[in-house]
Amino acid sequence: MHLRSPDDLRTLVERYLDELALSPELGGLEQAVRYPLESGGKRIRPVLCLAVGEAAGGEAERCLAAAAAVELVHAFSLVHDDLPALDDDDERRGRPSAHVAYGEAVALLAGDALLAEAFRLALSYPTPAVGRELAEATLGMIGGQYRDVTGSAGDLAELHRLKTGALFSAAVGVALWAAEVPEVEQRPWRAFGAELGLLFQIVDDVLDGDGYAESHGVAGARALADAAAERAQERLEAVPADTSVLAELVAGLASRTT
Amino acid sequence: MHLRSPDDLRTLVERYLDELALSPELGGLEQAVRYPLESGGKRIRPVLCLAVGEAAGGEAERCLAAAAAVELVHAFSLVHDDLPALDDDDERRGRPSAHVAYGEAVALLAGDALLAEAFRLALSYPTPAVGRELAEATLGMIGGQYRDVTGSAGDLAELHRLKTGALFSAAVGVALWAAEVPEVEQRPWRAFGAELGLLFQIVDDVLDGDGYAESHGVAGARALADAAAERAQERLEAVPADTSVLAELVAGLASRTT
Repeated sequence: MHLRSPDDLRTLVERYLDELALSPELGGLEQAVRYPLESGGKRIRPVLCLAVGEAAGGEAERCLAAAAAVELVHAFSLVHDDLPALDDDDERRGRPSAHVAYGEAVALLAGDALLAEAFRLALSYPTPAVGRELAEATLGMIGGQYRDVTGSAGDLAELHRLKTGALFSAAVGVALWAAEVPEVEQRPWRAFGAELGLLFQIVDDVLDGDGYAESHGVAGARALADAAAERAQERLEAVPADTSVLAELVAGLASRTT
Repeated sequence: MHLRSPDDLRTLVERYLDELALSPELGGLEQAVRYPLESGGKRIRPVLCLAVGEAAGGEAERCLAAAAAVELVHAFSLVHDDLPALDDDDERRGRPSAHVAYGEAVALLAGDALLAEAFRLALSYPTPAVGRELAEATLGMIGGQYRDVTGSAGDLAELHRLKTGALFSAAVGVALWAAEVPEVEQRPWRAFGAELGLLFQIVDDVLDGDGYAESHGVAGARALADAAAERAQERLEAVPADTSVLAELVAGLASRTT
């Protein structure tokens, strides 16, 4: 089967999010719910999800709702994390963050709606497993943010496993369910997924000059990122499928500059 | 089959919520997530859910996860609505509200966690229909809160249909799925469920002296509540089951004084 390139998959994601029908009962809130979805993020998680779905022998189209659900959970977390009560960030991807654009009350509700819409999408599958995976990941992510806000994480690795890793793992996990990969065959895929959050986060820290870059120095953090990328590529070799596009995604994660 | 009384069902709900295992990844956030669940609410929605499940021929125990999911969505909405950015309420059921007890950041995250835990519970069933029902209701409720905050509701009836009615309807709906009532037989049950939110809300307004009590006067609102209770009882008569406990719940909703 012909596997689509990361760019082609990203186009699929963008189109799906553009045309996504939200619950009509959101009424005037819809605009604020769409706002954080339009802001040209890298779509790394949903593209990963589609690429796993295709590599596993499914149609990327069948994984689109699951991929979008993961992106909506990500957007929910950004909108709430940016609020004055949490990180108090006024800007996000070069635009005013949601609470600056729409006010705190509407941003809070828009974040809630993004999470509920994510579950609506995850629940469009005949199996509840997609939604289960998403719920677990969301809880991990929230637990990570709690530890970050309160400074109660055991170490940076635990923090990132929850704050970032849980949703990367879920991007792989929901794709497996959406593509109907039997549970007994999911293990090597999941081992691969478990490496990605850390890789993403270390590179993020190198680009932002904090976290791992602070604790290990830029060169030290870069070496950790390379090691994480190498582990991810090794995990891919254990996956019995054409993982060429996934290998390309890993290489892109390791070498990204934005 | 012997149907349990509302009090017995309430005891079941309390015990289930007391013993509910939350995601271990929430870590120290767990306390703030439990806090709004411990505050001795009336448990009207989960008791309704169990009563529907029993009347429909299921075991109340099979509906417990769904009933708790509905109560967690309710708790999520209270925690977020009480935040300074929304209603800014410092007290809830005679205790400090969550953001007063734990600070805004933790209350915001606790609300998020309650919603995600609600879906985890709803997704413990083999059918995704329980979770779907919950997602739709949550979106309606958020849309209602948006209209309330922005003053953009068409009228009081639309506002209450969303803010209150959606979750009452879902309490009935999730019980039908959990008790495996076939979709073609659900209609009379759902017609009953659709009457309850309005009944609850009008009585609430009479007790609080706002909303319908303001727009229709106390006597006028009381008459509307009686009419809503009568419609709910009529709808029950169309349900082919022993609905005696449900009739008792409706009478209790109409005559409640707290």
